[in-house]
Amino acid sequence: MDFHSDNAAGVHPAVLEAVARAAGPHPRGYDADDWSARLDGAFSDLFGTPVRAFAVPSGTAANALGLAACVPPFGGVWCHAEAHIEVDEAGAVGFYTGGGSLMLVPAPHGKLTTAVLDEAAARRRGDVHQVQPAALSLTQATEAGTVYAPDEVAALAGWAKARGLTVHMDGARFANAVARLGCHPADISWKAGVDILSFGCIKNGGMSAEALLLFRPELAETIPVRRKRAGLMPSKGRFAAAQLLVMIEGGVWLENARAANAGAAAIAAAVPDRLLWPAEANELFLRLTADERETLRAAGFGFYDWELAGPDAARFVVRWDQDMAAIRALAAAIARL
Amino acid sequence: MDFHSDNAAGVHPAVLEAVARAAGPHPRGYDADDWSARLDGAFSDLFGTPVRAFAVPSGTAANALGLAACVPPFGGVWCHAEAHIEVDEAGAVGFYTGGGSLMLVPAPHGKLTTAVLDEAAARRRGDVHQVQPAALSLTQATEAGTVYAPDEVAALAGWAKARGLTVHMDGARFANAVARLGCHPADISWKAGVDILSFGCIKNGGMSAEALLLFRPELAETIPVRRKRAGLMPSKGRFAAAQLLVMIEGGVWLENARAANAGAAAIAAAVPDRLLWPAEANELFLRLTADERETLRAAGFGFYDWELAGPDAARFVVRWDQDMAAIRALAAAIARL
Amino acid sequence: MDFHSDNAAGVHPAVLEAVARAAGPHPRGYDADDWSARLDGAFSDLFGTPVRAFAVPSGTAANALGLAACVPPFGGVWCHAEAHIEVDEAGAVGFYTGGGSLMLVPAPHGKLTTAVLDEAAARRRGDVHQVQPAALSLTQATEAGTVYAPDEVAALAGWAKARGLTVHMDGARFANAVARLGCHPADISWKAGVDILSFGCIKNGGMSAEALLLFRPELAETIPVRRKRAGLMPSKGRFAAAQLLVMIEGGVWLENARAANAGAAAIAAAVPDRLLWPAEANELFLRLTADERETLRAAGFGFYDWELAGPDAARFVVRWDQDMAAIRALAAAIARL
Amino acid sequence: MDFHSDNAAGVHPAVLEAVARAAGPHPRGYDADDWSARLDGAFSDLFGTPVRAFAVPSGTAANALGLAACVPPFGGVWCHAEAHIEVDEAGAVGFYTGGGSLMLVPAPHGKLTTAVLDEAAARRRGDVHQVQPAALSLTQATEAGTVYAPDEVAALAGWAKARGLTVHMDGARFANAVARLGCHPADISWKAGVDILSFGCIKNGGMSAEALLLFRPELAETIPVRRKRAGLMPSKGRFAAAQLLVMIEGGVWLENARAANAGAAAIAAAVPDRLLWPAEANELFLRLTADERETLRAAGFGFYDWELAGPDAARFVVRWDQDMAAIRALAAAIARL
Repeated sequence: MDFHSDNAAGVHPAVLEAVARAAGPHPRGYDADDWSARLDGAFSDLFGTPVRAFAVPSGTAANALGLAACVPPFGGVWCHAEAHIEVDEAGAVGFYTGGGSLMLVPAPHGKLTTAVLDEAAARRRGDVHQVQPAALSLTQATEAGTVYAPDEVAALAGWAKARGLTVHMDGARFANAVARLGCHPADISWKAGVDILSFGCIKNGGMSAEALLLFRPELAETIPVRRKRAGLMPSKGRFAAAQLLVMIEGGVWLENARAANAGAAAIAAAVPDRLLWPAEANELFLRLTADERETLRAAGFGFYDWELAGPDAARFVVRWDQDMAAIRALAAAIARL
Repeated sequence: MDFHSDNAAGVHPAVLEAVARAAGPHPRGYDADDWSARLDGAFSDLFGTPVRAFAVPSGTAANALGLAACVPPFGGVWCHAEAHIEVDEAGAVGFYTGGGSLMLVPAPHGKLTTAVLDEAAARRRGDVHQVQPAALSLTQATEAGTVYAPDEVAALAGWAKARGLTVHMDGARFANAVARLGCHPADISWKAGVDILSFGCIKNGGMSAEALLLFRPELAETIPVRRKRAGLMPSKGRFAAAQLLVMIEGGVWLENARAANAGAAAIAAAVPDRLLWPAEANELFLRLTADERETLRAAGFGFYDWELAGPDAARFVVRWDQDMAAIRALAAAIARL
Repeated sequence: MDFHSDNAAGVHPAVLEAVARAAGPHPRGYDADDWSARLDGAFSDLFGTPVRAFAVPSGTAANALGLAACVPPFGGVWCHAEAHIEVDEAGAVGFYTGGGSLMLVPAPHGKLTTAVLDEAAARRRGDVHQVQPAALSLTQATEAGTVYAPDEVAALAGWAKARGLTVHMDGARFANAVARLGCHPADISWKAGVDILSFGCIKNGGMSAEALLLFRPELAETIPVRRKRAGLMPSKGRFAAAQLLVMIEGGVWLENARAANAGAAAIAAAVPDRLLWPAEANELFLRLTADERETLRAAGFGFYDWELAGPDAARFVVRWDQDMAAIRALAAAIARL
Repeated sequence: MDFHSDNAAGVHPAVLEAVARAAGPHPRGYDADDWSARLDGAFSDLFGTPVRAFAVPSGTAANALGLAACVPPFGGVWCHAEAHIEVDEAGAVGFYTGGGSLMLVPAPHGKLTTAVLDEAAARRRGDVHQVQPAALSLTQATEAGTVYAPDEVAALAGWAKARGLTVHMDGARFANAVARLGCHPADISWKAGVDILSFGCIKNGGMSAEALLLFRPELAETIPVRRKRAGLMPSKGRFAAAQLLVMIEGGVWLENARAANAGAAAIAAAVPDRLLWPAEANELFLRLTADERETLRAAGFGFYDWELAGPDAARFVVRWDQDMAAIRALAAAIARL
């Protein structure tokens, strides 16, 4: 009955088994083990293009390390005003880039458009007295639970490329976006112009590893030493790599995302008039008064108030392993209000 | 037959079981889970004093994050010229402190003394034109496989305290030092003046978590947000915490270190005249010609040449799970040379 | 006829003479010279309270170095969305703080209020996942040429203090604000709760030195070494200090600001219906169509379009040494449009 | 009678006149003024090759900003153990590079050789666990008052280039080296492989500006914005540029250096047996007991003890404007000891 966050999700049994299989002694540490050695290949296969892949211990690490590959200390990152890198990462991009800035752009439903970016860019001169734009960061699925269609990603990436910017995607819920769109993962990443992808696994059935993917090899050049000096390179690298491999090689990543999305869709379908905006992945943002929220909590449901969307808003996140009975119970409880 | 590194060690079964027990969904993410909530208490019990404990994914992260708590951007860290933070962490201290410096002091057998520190300090004026010393970092057991006795730690920490410096200990092999000395862990840490301890677990049977311990609560104040923005705070914090808890609550940490030390001692006892200096923990540095090293490798033994100690030196590390037959075989093979 | 910027102003003769008097050899370099030794005292006299004063070569240096004294790498600075530190300093605060962030607050006419700050603060949780607010930065006179009255400064500083924040004031045109208000400089600085003041001289008749003032001695503790390592500490410190001393000890600072303000007031009085908002210092923001701007430029007047205030806006800045004939000519030319 | 430092020198009259000529209002601020616009050309003429030139307020700023152009945050700078960037700049390189490291190499008489560099480099593995060497920094004239001949510079630069390193020269006393060698400034800079030169003026008759020179245009790409965000870009840039122009266009730089060198040579010639090593520029390092030093000080001579060179060492620096009588008096006084 807990809908606070997909960070509360369990670990998929296949991930646990993969970790156990790696438990014995192994002659090579750091990234020289047999599992880490397969990462690039496995992700290249999944995406249908050469990929450099690095295991990191958190989404924050993936985002900040990835952006450090393309944003100089004097550089800036265009992103949504409610982007996770702004709201929930304690300034990690500033840390990893050595002082780079986020350039915040408000827009409805968590989704940037070229129109709002044009408007924001028009207010900057770009001379030597200003932070120098270096990257565009998109979140997919967005922090508002919406999803960019392939052509939307392509339009935004095109906007960025025309200005010499690198395109980063915070894909903490990339799997949920792919599941929603029914597209190939390439369609909303490198084929649409994304250069760097934080490929989320932990919320989606993983344990302690996310993947940082780089679709242009030159962007990966400084990553190994940056990752090492950030303390992100595990001495027993096989345990992180094994988790990532089993997620993607076995299809767990997509299967889990579909399950979570389906749960959210079931709730959304039951209470369509309460949706603040479309629920396109595994998060729902609902119009609920304080009294209604209290009623739900009294009935045992856990979730966050969402002040960012106003005083009568709440967020519900459905996990990959969410109990279907709990999902039905929540839908019914809201419908009864 | 592999003696390259204790990073090649396996994971202790108890660690794997602890991780498996944490695998189900859990309502609270980040550090709010039931395992993380017990970390401070468990380490406080182990050390017999209030301790703030944080799980981090690598020894580099523990060292750099810990030093960031006490070294300003304009500060310096006295350390041995061969300290791991200098030789093997890719400038992590410079990164985490925002530009702080290591102040290197050469000394025999990996061990600092107040005499060599005095000599080094006498060459610095300390005025505003210079890096401002802020910390002393000791490694225990040292990078040379030697161990500081409690009174040696106390003397060095006293030297630091007299100069207003914070004392950090890189304890990647802290357990091996305790095992060697037969002392209480407090005797070579807070009771001897250590303020911050990187408590190593991964080399010693852990999987993917080390512990950063702070013995003075005010030093821990900035750690949570520094850890978060460094991407070191796992969203499913329970998996890191569970590993640490089982290591220390079950006594695995000390048992494993004893086993590794015993293996090294067995080899040392068999070839005493080859020791470059005393083998006091689980590392041996041996005098071996290039021909002799080739002979050993041809026989299937893995190890590193150790140029830092000259052209005829090699390093052997014994793991907690090293096969006793392999240990005996190595001792015999060297004796036969 | 040039109204682009007060950076175009000349150097006051007294400043030039002071520099010339310092030109001979002097036995002590850096800050040990006779001029630098008097800085603290002279500013303490001017402000009527103990002040630590440091010469720096630019307003950007004053702002960023001052904020580095109170903003940790994981900290944030509340400031107006059009603050100079955001719009015109190329990310200097991020550099000097080691990754700190600006937290931008839009508000009319360049002036923050506690109401807009309350609203902005309500959108932040302040937990460990977020940048930690550490300072409030006000600009006086503002970037919009408006001025905070003493009680407005006090209210904003009170808001900050209640939240544990340090109060910084970018006083590139502090003299113009004092001249406008007719108050004692203390009334809009330390008496109103300001802790750190960038005291501008260069736009106001100086040559190459600004003053960074700290009204709380503990805030000055790290400044000397931060200033040195930033390359801001001149080896012949007497030339910077001599400029600052002559500006404040001779009253030049206030006399010049009055002259500049009077020029702006004369223009404002002649074209009151064109003012986008009150012209309270030496900057005017006027409603002018593209055709009108072209007419003025054709007549020889220099000024900037001001897109930030819309398509029909322009900025005029009056210098301390602006020719009165040019001022009258501009007023007349605009009136004629 | 003061021989402490050339920072005690006066400002050359031509410099003062140049500043006075720039004192009136000027329509363009920052670097758009007529003086700044001529900097590149003037230095290109002096060096006989295209040069990008930037005025900065201190030698520390020149060194750190220049190295930031070529040293990434994870990079290292080979330099002499007694280099000014290590001993006297409070960690500026760490600050400007965002965490880069100095890699110290001891060597006699302040002079690096390829032999000592080879030895130091042999102790580094260079893998991802280590700081990545990025630059070699030489000081010319050295901190020991010695001078690298053109072929020595070329040999060291060749060593660096063979390893992919950029070559930086701290030329706080570059003029003194040119004066000593009687060579063209190109011979010990770009023609010998130097990429970046901190061209000192302040010690040598300047007032408040040094020049940062880049001999490869691509190295200058990030300098403008790095300089701005460091607060090193003066809003009235003409005053810094005017100083530099008059120093080099009028030949003052070389004339002054010759005068200072001649003074030092006169003393050296009078007391040859006291020289700790050759006095090749304007600094002398002499063997003097504590009693002898006391005698000299009692006679009114000012100078520093030089502990770095042992208990019986002292440093004397001759300024460009040093009184010849004082020089003779010092020589006589030492000879009398």
